[in-house]
Formats: sequence, C-alpha cells, structure tokens
Amino acid sequence: MLNDADEALAKRLRTHLPDIAFRQPREADHEEPRGRWRGQVGLLVRPETPGEVGTVLRLANEARVPVVARGGGTGLVGGQTMPEGARPILLSFERMTRIRAAEPENMAIIAEAGATLADLHSAAEYVGALFPLSYASEATATIGGALAVNSGGLNVLRYGTARDLCLGLEAVMADGRIYEGLSSLRKDNTGYDLRHLLIGSEGTLGVITAATVRLYPKPDHIATALVVVPDSAAALDLLAQARERFGSMISAFELISGMGLCFLDETGFDYPRPFSGIPDWLVLIEIGAFAGVDPVEGLGNLFEGALANHLVTDGVIAQSEAQRAAFWSIRENIPAANRRIGAVASHDISLPIGTIPDFLREAGDALSRIKPLRINAFGHLGDGNLHYNAFPLPGDSGASSSELRTRVTETVHDLVHKLGGSFSAEHGVGRAKTGDVEKYGDPTRLAAMQAIKKALDPNGILNPGAVLRAGV
Amino acid sequence: MLNDADEALAKRLRTHLPDIAFRQPREADHEEPRGRWRGQVGLLVRPETPGEVGTVLRLANEARVPVVARGGGTGLVGGQTMPEGARPILLSFERMTRIRAAEPENMAIIAEAGATLADLHSAAEYVGALFPLSYASEATATIGGALAVNSGGLNVLRYGTARDLCLGLEAVMADGRIYEGLSSLRKDNTGYDLRHLLIGSEGTLGVITAATVRLYPKPDHIATALVVVPDSAAALDLLAQARERFGSMISAFELISGMGLCFLDETGFDYPRPFSGIPDWLVLIEIGAFAGVDPVEGLGNLFEGALANHLVTDGVIAQSEAQRAAFWSIRENIPAANRRIGAVASHDISLPIGTIPDFLREAGDALSRIKPLRINAFGHLGDGNLHYNAFPLPGDSGASSSELRTRVTETVHDLVHKLGGSFSAEHGVGRAKTGDVEKYGDPTRLAAMQAIKKALDPNGILNPGAVLRAGV
Repeated sequence: MLNDADEALAKRLRTHLPDIAFRQPREADHEEPRGRWRGQVGLLVRPETPGEVGTVLRLANEARVPVVARGGGTGLVGGQTMPEGARPILLSFERMTRIRAAEPENMAIIAEAGATLADLHSAAEYVGALFPLSYASEATATIGGALAVNSGGLNVLRYGTARDLCLGLEAVMADGRIYEGLSSLRKDNTGYDLRHLLIGSEGTLGVITAATVRLYPKPDHIATALVVVPDSAAALDLLAQARERFGSMISAFELISGMGLCFLDETGFDYPRPFSGIPDWLVLIEIGAFAGVDPVEGLGNLFEGALANHLVTDGVIAQSEAQRAAFWSIRENIPAANRRIGAVASHDISLPIGTIPDFLREAGDALSRIKPLRINAFGHLGDGNLHYNAFPLPGDSGASSSELRTRVTETVHDLVHKLGGSFSAEHGVGRAKTGDVEKYGDPTRLAAMQAIKKALDPNGILNPGAVLRAGV
Repeated sequence: MLNDADEALAKRLRTHLPDIAFRQPREADHEEPRGRWRGQVGLLVRPETPGEVGTVLRLANEARVPVVARGGGTGLVGGQTMPEGARPILLSFERMTRIRAAEPENMAIIAEAGATLADLHSAAEYVGALFPLSYASEATATIGGALAVNSGGLNVLRYGTARDLCLGLEAVMADGRIYEGLSSLRKDNTGYDLRHLLIGSEGTLGVITAATVRLYPKPDHIATALVVVPDSAAALDLLAQARERFGSMISAFELISGMGLCFLDETGFDYPRPFSGIPDWLVLIEIGAFAGVDPVEGLGNLFEGALANHLVTDGVIAQSEAQRAAFWSIRENIPAANRRIGAVASHDISLPIGTIPDFLREAGDALSRIKPLRINAFGHLGDGNLHYNAFPLPGDSGASSSELRTRVTETVHDLVHKLGGSFSAEHGVGRAKTGDVEKYGDPTRLAAMQAIKKALDPNGILNPGAVLRAGV
C-alpha cells in the first residue's frame, strides 16, 4: 500500500532541498489536455539536479509515496496525472531545462529533461544541424516527456521516433540511485539496454533527468508539395513511387482528410486554398536533399507521372518558404481544430501500411452502425500511423457520453488488432490504455513487463497506474 | 545450482521432439573463432519451430539445465560457448533458417533466427530493396546471433546497428513461454520494449527465434573512393566535410591503417595498389544517392577541396563495380590477415569521435612502454568505432601469453574509459568482457541488469556466465 505525500515527508524533503524546490500547485498542475483526468498533487517538488531528484525518490521510496514525473504536461493518455490512490509527489522538471552541452563533432546535444523540443531545435540550429523530433506541442513538450512516451511526430519516416534519436540517458531509479548513461557513442554493446527500457516506460521504471540526443545534417534543399489524391489507396501508391524515386530523402508524408479541412473552416482557422472546393484527401510530402541537389524538378516529375496514372488529381509545389509554412499550417492546425469541435473518441493507431484502405472502409462502416458520426482521419501515413478521431454531427449534443466513447474506441481498437496494428502508435499507454495492454498485448510480454516493474520498482512508487494497472 | 544436460533430460526431450531435432556434436560446435574457449556440449538440440524451442526451454528450466543458443558461431567474445559449469544444452538454429515472409509494401522481411545475413541480403534483393547489415562473416552469421549481440558492421553510419534494423521479435523466455512480437509496425508504444531488452542480451534473458527486419530503398547511384590521409585527425576533418556536403547520403566511412596493408602483404592477400608505397592511413568512403543523382562529381569536388587543404594527399574514385569491389576487398580482408598474423590482443572499442587522434597517440605510447608491438587500428571511423589490435613483432614468439594480453587490454580499456568510450562497440560482452562490465560499467545500471536477469530468468539457465558473471 502506498501513502500520501504528507507534511512529515515534506519536512524531511525540506531538510535536503532548498525552498525554491517547492511551490504550491496551480490549477494547471492537475490538468491534462484531454480533460479526462484531474490529477491529485500531494506535494509539488521541482528539483534542479539529478542529485536532488535522487533525494526525492529515495525518501519517497522509503515512505512508500507515489511519484509522478511531469514535463510539459502535453501527454494525451493521462500519464502525467494520477487521479486516484495515495496523493503523490508531482515531480516537476520546470527547473531542469538546461542544454548542458552541444557537441557538433559528435552530432549530439545533451539536454536536461525539462528542456522543450523547441529548445533543442534552437540548440541544434545554433550548431548548424537538425534535431528532427517535431510535433504540434513542441514549444511546451519536454525531451524528458518525449522520451518517456517515445513520441513520434512529423519526421519519423526519415529520422525515427524519440527512441531512435536518443544516444544516452541520465535517470534516477526508484530507490534514488542515479544511472549515468549520457553517452554520445553510436555503438556501445555492454549489456542490457537500460536506455531503451526506460524510453517508453512513462516514468514507471525510473525518471529520466537528462538525455543525449542525436543531431542530423540539415538538408540544403527542401521541396514541399501539397497534392490531391482520390483515396488512401492512391496515397499509398504515391508513397511507393516517391520512395522508389527519392528513397530516404523523403522527410514527411502526411495524410489530411477533407473532414480536417472542414473542421478548420468550422473553427475559424484560416488556411491556403490552392484547390477548388474541399478535396476528399490531401497528401503533404516533403523531400530534403544534400549535395546541391534541388529536388523540385524530381518532385514535379513524380507528380506528372502520378497525374497520368490518376493517383493524383491536382497538386502544388511550394514556391517559397512562406508557402511551405502555409502548407504545413494546414496539417499542424488540425489537432487544435479537433479540440475546438470536441471528439467523441480519439485514436492514435498504427497499421501494416497496406491495410490502411481496408481499415478506413471497415472502421467507417462499423462506426456508422453505432451512430452517425464525423470521422477525421489524418496523420503520418508514411509510418502507417493514423490519428483516427470520431466527432458528433453538428448540433448533436448527445455524443459526449463515456459509454459512447468506450464503444467507439473498442470498435476501432478491435479492428486495428484484427489487422495486425497497434492501439498506441506514438502517444503511449498512460492511464487511458492500460486495459488495451491487457486485452490486446502479448501475454508473455505482459508477464515480462510485470516482472520487470517488480524488479526495478519493488514498492510500486513510480507513476502507479500508468502503463500497468496499479496493484496487478 | 545448475545440472548437466543428462540422459534423463534427453529422454524427456525425445518424447516431445522428433529424432531429427537431435544430432551428435561435432568439433566445430565446441569452438569459437578466437580459439580462447572450448565449449562444453551436454546435448545438442536443433528445433524447427518456436514451439519446439519452447519445449526445450520449459524442460531445461524445470531440470535447471543451462541452455546456450548458437547461430553461426561467429561471435568474437565467447558468448556462444560455455567452457565451464554444468554441461549445457546447445540450442542450434541450423533448422530454423527460413525467410517466413517478404513484405515489400511494409519494407520488411520476417526471418527465422538461423537465417544468415547473406540470406537476408538475397531476400531483400529479390524484392528490390536493401537490408544493410553487412560484415565480413555475413555468409555464416545469423540474424538471431546478430540481434543477440546487436552487431554493427560497415553501414551503421547510415542505417544503424542490428537493433535499429529490427522491427519485431519472436522469442522464447526462460520458462518456455513464447513472445509473439513479429510486428512490422514503425510505431508501437504499448509498454516496456521487450524487443530492445532482448536485443543485445546475448541469449541471457530469452532466446530469439525469429525477427522482422526493416528494409531500405536501394540507392540508385553509388560512388566509392579510396583516399590517402596523413593522419586520423585529417580523416575526421574529411568526415566533417563529407557530412556537410553529402549529409545522410554517406553509407560508409572506413579507416584502414598502413599496418593493415602490410599484413595483407605479409599473409599473401592480393589487393589493388593505386598508390605508390604503403600509405600510413587510407579512408574508404561510399556515397549512395537517389533521384537520378550521380554523386561521383560531388565526391570529386570534395577531394579537390581536401587536397588543397592537405586533408587528403592522394585518392581514387572507383570507375567500375569491379574496382569498387576491389577497394572493399582491402577493408574486408584485414580481419582474416589479422587472424593469420595472430594478435596479442584485439579490441572492439568506440570513442567520442573527436578523441580518436588522442586515443591513437596515447594508446600507442602506453603499449610501447609494455613491449614493442605492431598496432593495426582500423574500422568504422564514422561511428567512432575502431578495431584496435596489437600484434607481436615479426619473429617474436614470446608474445602469446595471456598475461601480456591482459595487460595490453587493460591499458587499452582504461584509456578508452578515461576518454568516455566503450570497451565493446559491436561485438558484445560474451564471456570475454564480463569483468569490464563490472569495472567500467555504471553501477546503477549493473544493479538493474542483475535485477532484470533475476526477474526474467530466475533459475539462471540462459547462457550462464555471459554478459553477467555466473552466480553474481
């Protein structure tokens, strides 16, 4: 059994940490973006060093008090909030935000867990390189949180997920011991990979305090196009043709649905409209090239061929940086528009890429049998990752029940599982999907996860209830 | 305590597995390439299915009998041989060699653990793609073994190590339960990453029976050059310039020492000699391009600039596929020449890339104080990974003692550790480097490794003595 973070523990902590390491919780500290959970906060601690994090965890472990680590708070599965059970220490990284080092010769940056992705973009820019992890919340999302959930975003197709961009970690284990693994080595085969085990464990096996992330050379020419495709199967054919021509030069291949454009209209987002009417599907494709090669001509050739084959019915190649940014704003504003509309249920799924057309058809059919809904499916087609979100019809106020959400989500996740996909592509498990882990996960893996949790956090203080249900 | 694989166990196994799953051990089954260990074999079992592997592990676990998995047997750290303790089951993958599926639309292949890297190259070629894991022993080395040690090789700079090329695993845990994780999904964040924990665990946490590996588009133009550089610092500057120009188009950047060329001469390997005399250092650089771009011109420009800056003193760009293969044969024959000469001590180290010139100077000085030796340093400079091997002077027969080897290796590994490097870059820990894990490894990580081993293999039957010393 776990205990509340009480006055006695606060007093013990205050003998080790300075006053500034404590503050009163604000309303935002209890919240998460979906508005589904309100987190408890027994005590908010904001250490400045890994040593201080170690002290917090050691004392919390001795007192059997839960600890929930919190970065930017942008996670979409409730991993940053603990709505029930003993009142936890909320471990905020707001004072651990430094870029500790930039190592251009190693193509690496060392950043503390509370540094935002935008901070890392700036630091990389400063040394003339690229840190490619990028998504809508990057100004707020921290690298610690990104690694805790192994987030993905817009450039996974070329550069991989947060995991693939991490060369080393500093972390604190449940008993307060510090793991010093801030290596920038590309190759280091010296036993079990604790780094990869901590990445994606959502603060349940240890707390990441800093990371070495890898940089990439910045392409010297970028070409971006927005094209109209008749359906998702055509988008997949276009991807295959683009891959044949551009290979690993493709940086992004994003799918945008007509419903997403309607939502931008409905919620007052302005966006460029290079096409007449609202197309059913758009693809945003970006190519990054080196060695003085300008990929615009090749992109033009790709589309000419695709037009002839009816894979593409219209398209525009960005003629300026401003136009490129405008194209991207369409894709990047869709999540915000979705929030303004208010989803019945949101899904972050991945699929074997060839099954996506079947999935879209079957899921649409199955949901329409439950209730008339509006579907906005969009996302990282090149990775097989869709955000498949269901919304009420305009004026339908009866679509916000949690029963309906559960039914819709079960229908979607059952279908994803049947097709060999995953119910969580890039958002993680958090508290939203622990039931899915049990329902769809490999039982051998689940048993191994439980054994590992028990081995590394025997008292179960680290983010209890996330990833694995508490007390299982 | 563990028990020998005895007649009683053999009898039980024979009630579950067909006769063909058993054969008498041959001399080769006891051996490893360095000739440092002779492995015991209590019973050789060669299952055909994951279910049969599960049966072997379940019965071995019940009987507390050690199990050593064996792929191609090419590992260089003794992980495939168990020279002492209870006599183990040698679990051979010689009958699990199938390519189960090629999925060009997912850019993935599913292969059984006993398939060789060469088998995977052929399968990838068949679907017009590239499986980039490549090294000298690829005709014999298996994908199971490659993943067990997270091997690297010639193309890590661009495509990563075995780990980075693995999308999913099928594995059998110590108690015989099968983990079915043969996903080809690019994104799947559904809890602790058992795949990454098993990769690099060298058969001590579970036994890999099959893997989904990722394919890459095949570059349509390849340019390869062999250039003379005055020293390793110039090679690093050349790498930085190449990266600026070619970015992620660089597929390989290999360092070859003049001593390596002398060894080729001394051991009777023929090789192309485009330069007068024996240069101190060569770099082999390869660029792979898409979109109809021929990188030869850019490579020429790179070298013109580097010649002007004295980073390069001579160089040849391959004019044909045959010449390209000839250049590569220089690099690829060096390990065989080394074996014919007979090393005092071999090291597979990685370093923060900027420290490599310091390392080479300091290591050479330190070793020369021990005894006059010949040093052949070569390898994957782009990854910071050197094979740093010490050899006796010609005619010196007194250099084969294990005391000398220990002293040389300690000197090298101490220096690597001081410079922030790793004592094992791509060969793994095996039985050769368990002491180094204890001496140089992070103690928090070591404790976590021990806890994980205990959690996943409570009876300690899986490859005891590898990675972690037995009984610790």
